[in-house]
Amino acid sequence: MSLLIVGTVAFDAIETPFGKTDKILGGAATYIGLSASRYLPKQNLVSVVGEDFPQEHMDLLSDRGVDLEGLQIKQGEKTFFWSGKYHNDMNSRDTLDTQLNVLAEFDPVVPESYKDCEFLMLGNLLPSVQQRVLEQLPNRPKLIVLDTMNFWMDNFWDDLMEALKNVDVLTINDEEARQLSGEYSLVKAAKKILTMGPKNLIIKKGEHGALLFNNEEVFFAPALPLEDVFDPTGAGDTFAGGFIGYLAKTNDISFNNMKRAIIHGSALASFCVEKFGTVRLENVTDSEIEERLNAFIDLVQVEMHL
Amino acid sequence: MSLLIVGTVAFDAIETPFGKTDKILGGAATYIGLSASRYLPKQNLVSVVGEDFPQEHMDLLSDRGVDLEGLQIKQGEKTFFWSGKYHNDMNSRDTLDTQLNVLAEFDPVVPESYKDCEFLMLGNLLPSVQQRVLEQLPNRPKLIVLDTMNFWMDNFWDDLMEALKNVDVLTINDEEARQLSGEYSLVKAAKKILTMGPKNLIIKKGEHGALLFNNEEVFFAPALPLEDVFDPTGAGDTFAGGFIGYLAKTNDISFNNMKRAIIHGSALASFCVEKFGTVRLENVTDSEIEERLNAFIDLVQVEMHL
Repeated sequence: MSLLIVGTVAFDAIETPFGKTDKILGGAATYIGLSASRYLPKQNLVSVVGEDFPQEHMDLLSDRGVDLEGLQIKQGEKTFFWSGKYHNDMNSRDTLDTQLNVLAEFDPVVPESYKDCEFLMLGNLLPSVQQRVLEQLPNRPKLIVLDTMNFWMDNFWDDLMEALKNVDVLTINDEEARQLSGEYSLVKAAKKILTMGPKNLIIKKGEHGALLFNNEEVFFAPALPLEDVFDPTGAGDTFAGGFIGYLAKTNDISFNNMKRAIIHGSALASFCVEKFGTVRLENVTDSEIEERLNAFIDLVQVEMHL
Repeated sequence: MSLLIVGTVAFDAIETPFGKTDKILGGAATYIGLSASRYLPKQNLVSVVGEDFPQEHMDLLSDRGVDLEGLQIKQGEKTFFWSGKYHNDMNSRDTLDTQLNVLAEFDPVVPESYKDCEFLMLGNLLPSVQQRVLEQLPNRPKLIVLDTMNFWMDNFWDDLMEALKNVDVLTINDEEARQLSGEYSLVKAAKKILTMGPKNLIIKKGEHGALLFNNEEVFFAPALPLEDVFDPTGAGDTFAGGFIGYLAKTNDISFNNMKRAIIHGSALASFCVEKFGTVRLENVTDSEIEERLNAFIDLVQVEMHL
């Protein structure tokens, strides 16, 4: 099934207790695309970069089946840049620098050939930009997944509420779920958020796994305990890409299939954090992924005698 | 199989965002005993209280099958008292008051009739006291579970190292695992701790579940997402009591059975936090426990198509 990904394509400069990088390929849509490409031969991309964005990065995306017709290249402008430093616990980070550049005036344009998309991944962006993409689609996609963050809750609450009305699956982390709902208990938070529009809610808890809620059911996917987390950048987007990529491939949006999709997303995210940037995601093999999926299943496997 | 529980029997005064209590029944051995009593008709207790400890609390324990022959009652002295206040997140707390009282000079004496115990639960106590219990047993129990905490790591490192040498299962929380090992990664921490003596390690992560490690395997048990956590006091001890109670009842200390035991411990702990103190643990029914065990299993249930 056709997948449309909307999100940032960026340069990142990352510092962790294990080392630091120069400007490397980053951005939500990049991670989502590379991750979803494990499941689909082709994904469409709506994003924007500056003229400084190198051909080799575009080739990397193209080689993985990411169609670049919807990637605007702004002459005379620069690509979005983010720089951050992770603390020793690898769970918290400081933003060192954010240069919006082309993102400041980003007006997403969905090419005609993308408009019949059945699966839509709205990566973390200004809620009004997410909304403008949706408005360009003549038919509602079969599944709309939206990712967002605390910054939009702080500054664009009304726009976010508007965007949430159209969402099938919202992905946020635990702190964001608490902020969005005003509830500390994640069960209560989920109940409240599910009244705001989303039919399903994924709460990402990083090293503590992920929860999937709808109005009737709840599912918990553990995170795999890892020896080392080298660089968490992009893990959430990789998770989302694996999640929607698996759903699009199997063309089944039932709750039971979302459970499987979450395990796939978690497995891909567990590779993402093993090296800086997209490196591990680029070279992970199918058999490594399958091995890790089995590790996820084994981790919680218990035969009760009830 | 016979179970011997060593640990505190105490008064607690607890304050949470939901309310506060006067002096109520508390202590590690109390929670362990009430929890293990769901699996065993009788458990032996080695502990100490003062003359202020009321008959009704002793009756409560007796009624649940906790044998009190090993409970020293110190005339002219007072029972151990702890008072704490939980923060809004219910994960962190401040100790408001600690009165060691009878605990200051506690010299555990194991009655003759307890000495053939096959399952031994060494609740959180001075490591040298835990060790003195072990020295009084003519034969090594089939399974020794030891609980400890950061305070003993800070102040009685050598004694703790000595005690750990004899342990089959060590239960600590994630921060304590990091402190004990000097490793941030819990996988690395577990590897290191398993070289210190314990054959198995349970890392309790509270609302994020629990991990079980031995040298070959790892298992993760989720925590049940709860609407409200009313009072976390005793949850870890309740978990330990359910864990060793189930193992003693089934008389099977394989890794696979420890997985089941962890789910049982987690289920009981999830009740413990629903009311102040031991109240919920006292009145939970067998069918409620079975329902919750099923909820734990359902929570992570996924059928992968690999």
